[in-house]
Amino acid sequence: MTAGSASGPAVEPTAPTTHASEPSREPRIEARTLKGFSDHLPESAARREWIMATLRKVFSGWGYMPLETPAVEYADVLLGRYGAEAEKLIYRFPDMGGRDVALRYDQTVPFARVIAQYRDLPRPFRRYQFQRVWRGENTGRGREREFTQCDVDVAGSPGVIADAETLCIAAAGFQAIGFERVRVVVNDRTTFDELGLSKGDIITIDKLSKIGEVGVINELARSGHDEADARELLGRLQDAPPPPRLKQVIAAAHDLGIDPGSLVYDPTLARGLDYYTSTILEVVSPDYASGSLGGGGRYDQLIGRFTGRDVPAVGFSFGLERVSDALASIGGLDHVHASPDAVVIPMSTSTLHWAGKVAAAIRAAGRTVAVGTEPDRPLGRQLEGATKLHARFAVIVGEDEASAGTATVRNLSTRDQLTLPLSEVPTRLA
Amino acid sequence: MTAGSASGPAVEPTAPTTHASEPSREPRIEARTLKGFSDHLPESAARREWIMATLRKVFSGWGYMPLETPAVEYADVLLGRYGAEAEKLIYRFPDMGGRDVALRYDQTVPFARVIAQYRDLPRPFRRYQFQRVWRGENTGRGREREFTQCDVDVAGSPGVIADAETLCIAAAGFQAIGFERVRVVVNDRTTFDELGLSKGDIITIDKLSKIGEVGVINELARSGHDEADARELLGRLQDAPPPPRLKQVIAAAHDLGIDPGSLVYDPTLARGLDYYTSTILEVVSPDYASGSLGGGGRYDQLIGRFTGRDVPAVGFSFGLERVSDALASIGGLDHVHASPDAVVIPMSTSTLHWAGKVAAAIRAAGRTVAVGTEPDRPLGRQLEGATKLHARFAVIVGEDEASAGTATVRNLSTRDQLTLPLSEVPTRLA
Repeated sequence: MTAGSASGPAVEPTAPTTHASEPSREPRIEARTLKGFSDHLPESAARREWIMATLRKVFSGWGYMPLETPAVEYADVLLGRYGAEAEKLIYRFPDMGGRDVALRYDQTVPFARVIAQYRDLPRPFRRYQFQRVWRGENTGRGREREFTQCDVDVAGSPGVIADAETLCIAAAGFQAIGFERVRVVVNDRTTFDELGLSKGDIITIDKLSKIGEVGVINELARSGHDEADARELLGRLQDAPPPPRLKQVIAAAHDLGIDPGSLVYDPTLARGLDYYTSTILEVVSPDYASGSLGGGGRYDQLIGRFTGRDVPAVGFSFGLERVSDALASIGGLDHVHASPDAVVIPMSTSTLHWAGKVAAAIRAAGRTVAVGTEPDRPLGRQLEGATKLHARFAVIVGEDEASAGTATVRNLSTRDQLTLPLSEVPTRLA
Repeated sequence: MTAGSASGPAVEPTAPTTHASEPSREPRIEARTLKGFSDHLPESAARREWIMATLRKVFSGWGYMPLETPAVEYADVLLGRYGAEAEKLIYRFPDMGGRDVALRYDQTVPFARVIAQYRDLPRPFRRYQFQRVWRGENTGRGREREFTQCDVDVAGSPGVIADAETLCIAAAGFQAIGFERVRVVVNDRTTFDELGLSKGDIITIDKLSKIGEVGVINELARSGHDEADARELLGRLQDAPPPPRLKQVIAAAHDLGIDPGSLVYDPTLARGLDYYTSTILEVVSPDYASGSLGGGGRYDQLIGRFTGRDVPAVGFSFGLERVSDALASIGGLDHVHASPDAVVIPMSTSTLHWAGKVAAAIRAAGRTVAVGTEPDRPLGRQLEGATKLHARFAVIVGEDEASAGTATVRNLSTRDQLTLPLSEVPTRLA
């Protein structure tokens, strides 16, 4: 659960371990978060960790290396690249030294800065980067002011294999986290140039899935095209074969092992951002109906802003929160739990020693376990606490167990319980 | 390598894949980072990831759950807790809506806010949190303005087992990442109360390891104590037995399995922060001479600021950068590499298909591999690129290999190479 605006009804804690004492003397501050900024409580945070750990394995498997950049940059590093509307959303302020600084808005511009700043990096330079970005958006469904971007890019390689690799990794990454039916939709920006489409036309065509053919034709007509021309233009675009470079990219992606069925050419795919120069891609899934899961493309002129000469680059990016929500909605995160597998309950302080041994054995078997911190409480209340924690098992350690070298494993759903020798306890928690 | 001020001499890229084209028309922006803010280039980022992944395993093994909070908070949530001097270091600014906001300064106050805000969290609530914090410090050796804190805390448990568990996890965490000789030094704040020591005295005693006994006695004398009294006071403190609660904490830590040799009582341990109410701890290692690796303690009155009534809590915290540097200095991170194990080099576009199969087999065996993106370049230059990347192996795929179903594995250090059937390639990369 992401806890932001919707954290459920506030319920007074009923757990027995709350320690009420004298009220604080200082003025009480209301515990609250800013609109568009969310806490990730354990269940949500565990899911995020699982997704990122899975993606790290895939991306490093393809030779991509991690990168982290600062949250705060000189404002001039970020400004002048995203467009005027976007720049209004940048969190920008003077720091203690009066420097004009700003919070990271995306990871592509910091990546470009890194490429320019450290000139002895290997080329091609493949990196992944999973960090937060901040945008002062109007908040709304799925639009937060702080969110985590997952970016994968390769700089320094102009060839089609780099584009192909990007398509393969996009498919492999989403498949690894559970989107089995993922599709990578691909196009080349030069398709539009050849048909003489303007930037405005591209933005209109980008809305095809939202407003439909009629909508696009009407909007093209409103922006100066004759209606018949607009209809013909859209038709010609829809029938356009992939340009030669894209054909090579697709062939290379097949060579690199992409499942051919998961790679789809769509000549109407546009992508809003205007810094793409050739291949563009979007990742979609029949399991997620609300748009694309992520996207990217080749941007051969973005890095030149810092270096003074262009460095070719291609990559893709997605928002972790959207992907996590989409995955959760198809049950793809049901196997991830923040709660420990078990709570070991010492029934008195004198059994803590044996409880410690039992917990260590469970831990050594790779399972997660909390030890009850209040052995003097009645067993019933300790079991309630374990249930509230969503642990699946309680492992009860009383005097009998401590002297016999056993522990009593209780399934907290079925309430079945069984007293076992220590050596058999960890496997019982499977 | 952490790349901040010291990134080594800037060398023009010599790698063959740089694609020079027309200079950008926009004004060139200098690629640079703010003082106190560092990029983590792949080698450094990989080490950080390894440390955090290892710690996650340990902390979740003890039943601790992940938590993430926003980077930006209402300023009043953070203010009034750290003290006036510290508050000057908080990055504070008005957001687009004119709200008074601030960047996270530590993770304890956001943790306290979370405990207060979500009242149906399980109690005790165990969480770990690894996020960045920002402090406008004067930068200096090991003092950055942005750094990552690793925090482990349990709220809602007043008993000694929670304190004991904190000591155990501190030892277990540092041992897991490679500080085999770690010591957890422990004390109880009430020791000072019983000897009638003031807050100022505690701050002085906290300097014992830095300024020595004579220094402490002189400083105590300067602050109003008679010199003989100061000497006697320090002597009595050094001889003070652990107070009864700390004895129970230590016994419980032994019950929970801490190596008794790694737990050390030191009645002069003070810890600067004044919110600790009982147990205090510091983690030290003979492998790190420049102070403590981390510290913490029990703070039973901090959360009350939000809730209006106190919630007991205990935990510990450390800076990832310091721990990473300390570990690197004893060779404890030499096994962590960002570079892929191998680069598969297709010797022409027509062998890309077989190169893709070879790379997939290597990946399936759990190894990391990049595929060369410029198959038309001479082999020598492709090998140079793989060497510059610090890959250990090149796997060469020419026409002969492609038709025979083999690949040539070249050790990039020894330059030995051997042509092998595909099935034997992955094991050769060990």
